[in-house]
Amino acid sequence: MKKKSLTKDDYVKGILDGNKTILAQAITLIESQKAEHQVLAQEILDEIYPFTGNSKRIGISGTPGVGKSTFIEGFGKYCIEQGSKVAVLAVDPSSHVSQGSILGDKTRMQELASHEKAFIRPSPSRGQLGGIGQKTREAMLLCEAAGFDKILIETVGVGQSEILVASMVDCFFLLLGPSAGDELQGIKRGIMEVADLVIVNKADGPMQELAKVAQHEYQRAVKILRNDESWEPKVLLASALKKTGFAEIYGTLNQFFLRKNEVTQKRQKQKTQWMWDLTFHRLSNYLKNEKLDAKFVEQVEAKVTHSQLTPTRAHELLWQAFLK
Amino acid sequence: MKKKSLTKDDYVKGILDGNKTILAQAITLIESQKAEHQVLAQEILDEIYPFTGNSKRIGISGTPGVGKSTFIEGFGKYCIEQGSKVAVLAVDPSSHVSQGSILGDKTRMQELASHEKAFIRPSPSRGQLGGIGQKTREAMLLCEAAGFDKILIETVGVGQSEILVASMVDCFFLLLGPSAGDELQGIKRGIMEVADLVIVNKADGPMQELAKVAQHEYQRAVKILRNDESWEPKVLLASALKKTGFAEIYGTLNQFFLRKNEVTQKRQKQKTQWMWDLTFHRLSNYLKNEKLDAKFVEQVEAKVTHSQLTPTRAHELLWQAFLK
Repeated sequence: MKKKSLTKDDYVKGILDGNKTILAQAITLIESQKAEHQVLAQEILDEIYPFTGNSKRIGISGTPGVGKSTFIEGFGKYCIEQGSKVAVLAVDPSSHVSQGSILGDKTRMQELASHEKAFIRPSPSRGQLGGIGQKTREAMLLCEAAGFDKILIETVGVGQSEILVASMVDCFFLLLGPSAGDELQGIKRGIMEVADLVIVNKADGPMQELAKVAQHEYQRAVKILRNDESWEPKVLLASALKKTGFAEIYGTLNQFFLRKNEVTQKRQKQKTQWMWDLTFHRLSNYLKNEKLDAKFVEQVEAKVTHSQLTPTRAHELLWQAFLK
Repeated sequence: MKKKSLTKDDYVKGILDGNKTILAQAITLIESQKAEHQVLAQEILDEIYPFTGNSKRIGISGTPGVGKSTFIEGFGKYCIEQGSKVAVLAVDPSSHVSQGSILGDKTRMQELASHEKAFIRPSPSRGQLGGIGQKTREAMLLCEAAGFDKILIETVGVGQSEILVASMVDCFFLLLGPSAGDELQGIKRGIMEVADLVIVNKADGPMQELAKVAQHEYQRAVKILRNDESWEPKVLLASALKKTGFAEIYGTLNQFFLRKNEVTQKRQKQKTQWMWDLTFHRLSNYLKNEKLDAKFVEQVEAKVTHSQLTPTRAHELLWQAFLK
């Protein structure tokens, strides 16, 4: 992006050639807020779009301290050993004040990051145009066009990241620790419901027995919570540290993708949902900043501010004004 | 709600009298999806609205296994001893499949629940009209009108609950365990930024020294992450189990509310945001289900489904159709 600018064809060729430098530059372009960058980025996406969709898209979440980075590094390398090219992306919609993370990301996944067949991209900065997750979705498409056939999308932090990541991947991994009581209390509902594969990490050494007990409890929990008849979530043991359990996870992943119709249908739903998300996002901006009379909005807001109107009643007024 | 129906005046009088049975019935009415119930609920809210706003609204989140329920029970009882009336509400937007929780809620906070000056309401079922959190906001107003002057809003599960709860409370408590390394790795950004008070729970027995170390680390972390000049988040030690640390938390809470202007401004912003959330939610439904031609939408969706259009390009088409 510095010095001589790349043309659209440079980008497209570079990406399709699997050039990681150009791939990284293209993602930077996608993340740029400049209008001219966005135009170019969309043109690139149009061109590479026919070459996307050929990866296994995997979301990865986990409870605090469960060893998510170690797992991604270990499992990513295992996938490469099986012949894959692996891209790791991150989603972090929760950060709406700072852009930094408490623990720096620099030291994470160093071994994987330096591997020729791996590509790691930290989470894009906030203030994404077109709604949360948009940039990660587009970055994923670029990685696919560049030949990466396993895309690991990591959720970072709290917030709505799990649900968001679930909306862009085929298969969702949930990493839990070997102590079922504590873990289940914290995570409860939502996340267990979207998990396709629960991995009990740290199942090594003295924790092994505990992990087996946890495995049974998690299995029971996902059975209760899961509503999907086409796939019964598996609960597997692993130790990211000792590099055990990867083969079984890899095999289960392949099983998951044998359900071709289901995966295709899920992706189709995700694509239309993505379209609607963009549309609704734009609509909200339009209503607030263009459609409604600024003075009128100011008056209504003042009444809400001074408790002369409940927010519910006030929204009625805005709505009637919109319909006029 | 069974047998003889209450009139609007019955509800309003009952709530203002602090009648917990009627308060509970009114919240059920608010949560109802029936149109006639909604009309009545809004009329009740109009009537009681002038009597709301006189509580300290406190959000409570925490990492898995940190002892949140025990803390809420202990701290709630402490507040009652200081002369308060305490209502506990819960927000759980993450559950979009099942309605149950893995660990039943029945056995939680039994002591507090049975106290005359306490009111506990579990999280409303999903499928809330008017967007996530709407019902909890309205339930909070009813509790205030019924004389509860401490409203504790608990976040349940993962998902966007923390950010949502932060959008409806004055002061946000974050409960963390005494082992800073693990905890910080997991929570990172988002949630630390909205925390006004970090409580290191389980600071008892052999963990006490570790908790003190964690306290310093958390203090450093919130200093880095916090952008609010009017309040520097405090990090306090507590043991919900041993019932220690409550007095200091209570004192800090009072300090927090000495900043009357800031709290007032925060509430004003929250109210207008609430109004906009409702409006945007309605607008989305309108666009999709009323404004756009169903056939046209079907065609665009089909193109997206079959990868003939990127979702981004497809949203452009919808948008142009909307503007016509």
